[in-house]
Amino acid sequence: MFTFRTLGIYHWTWNHRPLLYLECESLRRHRHMLNYVVYERMLFVFPYAPGDYIPNPNYRFMPQGLYYNPYTEPRQVWWQYPQDSGGRYRAMAPQRLTFVLVHGSWADAHFWDGVAAVLRNQGNIVYTPEYAGHGSDPNKNVTHDMITNSVVDYIKHLNLHDFILVGHSFGGTVIQKVAEQIPDRIKRLVFWDAFVLKDGESVVDELPPQTKKGFEQLRAMSNDDTIMLPFDLFPALFVNTATTEDAKLFYTSVAPEPAKPLFEKLDLKAFYALQTPKSYVYFYQDNVMPQGEGYGWNPHMSMRLGLFRLIVGDGDHFTDTRTRPAYLAQKIYDATRD
Amino acid sequence: MFTFRTLGIYHWTWNHRPLLYLECESLRRHRHMLNYVVYERMLFVFPYAPGDYIPNPNYRFMPQGLYYNPYTEPRQVWWQYPQDSGGRYRAMAPQRLTFVLVHGSWADAHFWDGVAAVLRNQGNIVYTPEYAGHGSDPNKNVTHDMITNSVVDYIKHLNLHDFILVGHSFGGTVIQKVAEQIPDRIKRLVFWDAFVLKDGESVVDELPPQTKKGFEQLRAMSNDDTIMLPFDLFPALFVNTATTEDAKLFYTSVAPEPAKPLFEKLDLKAFYALQTPKSYVYFYQDNVMPQGEGYGWNPHMSMRLGLFRLIVGDGDHFTDTRTRPAYLAQKIYDATRD
Amino acid sequence: MFTFRTLGIYHWTWNHRPLLYLECESLRRHRHMLNYVVYERMLFVFPYAPGDYIPNPNYRFMPQGLYYNPYTEPRQVWWQYPQDSGGRYRAMAPQRLTFVLVHGSWADAHFWDGVAAVLRNQGNIVYTPEYAGHGSDPNKNVTHDMITNSVVDYIKHLNLHDFILVGHSFGGTVIQKVAEQIPDRIKRLVFWDAFVLKDGESVVDELPPQTKKGFEQLRAMSNDDTIMLPFDLFPALFVNTATTEDAKLFYTSVAPEPAKPLFEKLDLKAFYALQTPKSYVYFYQDNVMPQGEGYGWNPHMSMRLGLFRLIVGDGDHFTDTRTRPAYLAQKIYDATRD
Repeated sequence: MFTFRTLGIYHWTWNHRPLLYLECESLRRHRHMLNYVVYERMLFVFPYAPGDYIPNPNYRFMPQGLYYNPYTEPRQVWWQYPQDSGGRYRAMAPQRLTFVLVHGSWADAHFWDGVAAVLRNQGNIVYTPEYAGHGSDPNKNVTHDMITNSVVDYIKHLNLHDFILVGHSFGGTVIQKVAEQIPDRIKRLVFWDAFVLKDGESVVDELPPQTKKGFEQLRAMSNDDTIMLPFDLFPALFVNTATTEDAKLFYTSVAPEPAKPLFEKLDLKAFYALQTPKSYVYFYQDNVMPQGEGYGWNPHMSMRLGLFRLIVGDGDHFTDTRTRPAYLAQKIYDATRD
Repeated sequence: MFTFRTLGIYHWTWNHRPLLYLECESLRRHRHMLNYVVYERMLFVFPYAPGDYIPNPNYRFMPQGLYYNPYTEPRQVWWQYPQDSGGRYRAMAPQRLTFVLVHGSWADAHFWDGVAAVLRNQGNIVYTPEYAGHGSDPNKNVTHDMITNSVVDYIKHLNLHDFILVGHSFGGTVIQKVAEQIPDRIKRLVFWDAFVLKDGESVVDELPPQTKKGFEQLRAMSNDDTIMLPFDLFPALFVNTATTEDAKLFYTSVAPEPAKPLFEKLDLKAFYALQTPKSYVYFYQDNVMPQGEGYGWNPHMSMRLGLFRLIVGDGDHFTDTRTRPAYLAQKIYDATRD
Repeated sequence: MFTFRTLGIYHWTWNHRPLLYLECESLRRHRHMLNYVVYERMLFVFPYAPGDYIPNPNYRFMPQGLYYNPYTEPRQVWWQYPQDSGGRYRAMAPQRLTFVLVHGSWADAHFWDGVAAVLRNQGNIVYTPEYAGHGSDPNKNVTHDMITNSVVDYIKHLNLHDFILVGHSFGGTVIQKVAEQIPDRIKRLVFWDAFVLKDGESVVDELPPQTKKGFEQLRAMSNDDTIMLPFDLFPALFVNTATTEDAKLFYTSVAPEPAKPLFEKLDLKAFYALQTPKSYVYFYQDNVMPQGEGYGWNPHMSMRLGLFRLIVGDGDHFTDTRTRPAYLAQKIYDATRD
């Protein structure tokens, strides 16, 4: 018989898996039971890979959020009994990367707050440029070139190199054009439910006729050539997995979107000649674009990338940036692999 | 050091997440450990959203089933230490809704037993009308109009208003026609792997030629213009994720289906003029219809709804009504959001 | 108040669900709390089905790996208090099956090592034939007929009957041809992200023009009419969900693939006349083939099977054989159901 002293219970992530850490002391030793040992410290990770070895965790590198990564199977337990009571676990540092995250329409740099926090917690360096016509920029009269140049200038000013350039939604067209200008600085392009336009296409060319018409009407209704997303479209199209409360919260950050860049036909010949590695992250509940029959993110637009790494998740277009930032960060991280 | 008194361990769901509740008393106070506190009562919810606040649970409103909702990240712990030992947690009541669930072919109102039980447990009001030619109705010689009128009469007789009208499979065509008659009573239409017919179409018009031919042969074989689903088709098409035992159990409730309504071409002009909010729940292992190339639930038929809220799950056509009613109920509930 | 004696904590799988087994003894009886009882032995299974009954587990039949099966809902607890302290739980034995697993291109019989180990652990009999031109065979100058005959001879030599014949990738074409020769020995055909060729088609006929051209160039570059998979294509196409380290590890077993069988047009008239039950396991992150618009595993090729049982998982083309063998084994097992 024994009683035990619980020193603490922690929840972390290790190697993309939730980790439950029970720190406790038993008054008497347990006997070994099968392949399970209850000891001074217990670590549970779920799911685990048979034969896997969980390294000593170091608090500093543990992400704040937990997520469920289904791609490895669960492990039962790992234990360690250090000689001295002051002994602490040491972590393997994950690979540190530099990310430049480019938001889409009806969004600004705060779109990435949650994801950036998670990636930074994991030791990565993260930049979230806000481009012309968005966020704090009062001028909505911008072109696609001006937007692209915002991001290129930002990168050149900070002299960034060897980074992962991530684009979401309309941001896909931005990273296509940015990549044309500064291909040598970019380690990999990651499109997350983002437009991959063909040479000579505009964003609205990828929309179903009905939606395109709606865009044209909203544009015509505005005084400053912008398109404001009506709230009655927002929950169904952008945050369909969110609660009503979250949908309303999200909508508070929606601002009128400059219309011109959505209608501009882009010259992308240089993009299609680039050898930069590419990835596509597709969330299968994203219904902003119809999911097939000549439309949609994947495979319709992703296929245009030629050879690319595909990562699939179960979110929608916006919601996970706030409700599951660690999940989304993990999917983006998975997509960065060489 | 401490020993603790376990008063109970409970498993619930909170805000669509599994909740593990450990009720215990420590003989001595714990010290705070990082952001984790072990106290009088411990609540674990998995997954959790950073910054999330778990309200006091009230047993009455807790659903009986547990399900895994992957759309929010895990939370570590929430604790409360009420002043008096008799203090009990009080719950936020979830939003109460009224549901009218309309089954499909080869089914009757019992199809919804599990889902209705879960939704009722969560405080919702649920109706499951059984329509002409099905269940206890001995007359199989029915038309699509008669079926529609069964549901309309049921709703009018009970004087239901402001309800969610859910249709499954063939039930999709029924709620299309019901909505035409009583649009003002309906808060939202939810199609779960259900037909959304075009104006002038019949159900069999959406089937691949081979399946349509099979339907015609089965119809011709019957004495009473019905189509009996042969058992050799049932496990692969309707319950492909089920065990063999469950498949047999499911098949015991399959009855001959009136053929005429499946071949009737429906006038749906009024439906396509309705402004009623619409949702589509798609289960991606459902293989009753081919999953693409001109066929299928999503996006092929769902797209016809115009603006709709999409919710995706990983089930098949029938199985989850019995093996995962809380999961299915949750997906339907998610689809009801405005 | 009570203290308890923990005899052991185990992690298993029961009926495709993770099972947490806490063996403990209380000094004093607990009182019953709601529907949860803490007693001599506690079993948690997640997810559970309401009303489900967890049989007594027997250690011998428990698989070594744990996996998350999302198709059933969680159960709270099951308890038993045997009269005598030596009382042990007895398990229901799962259905024992015989599997013949046929690998694809750029692979050999070791491809199945993990999956075969899991299936054997669960009591099944598993064969993994290695066919002509692959693995230890030094002769790369083989035809599709020679490959098919390798498998047929293996099966006849061991006099196997009533087995599940599983083909992966190119192995799909092999089991199509094997089934033509020995249909009466086969209980069911299972295609896992495998080619289902039309009559008169070759493997390269299913590739996009660009990929086909790449194959032709690689073939022309070789001295022995093989195609070596370049490493720069491998991580993105074959192991996109794997870590970089795992991708490199996988690549060490990639050997030059005989080219001829990939370009041979196959007569499959006899295959399409077979009545053998068929299943398709589709992993939705598999991007070896474009996922639609006239290409891909499911529904594009799977639909050719006519009536088939579909099972969907979230892996890619290769990775899960090593990182989640129990998950993959489960999906294949699910596909075998009648």
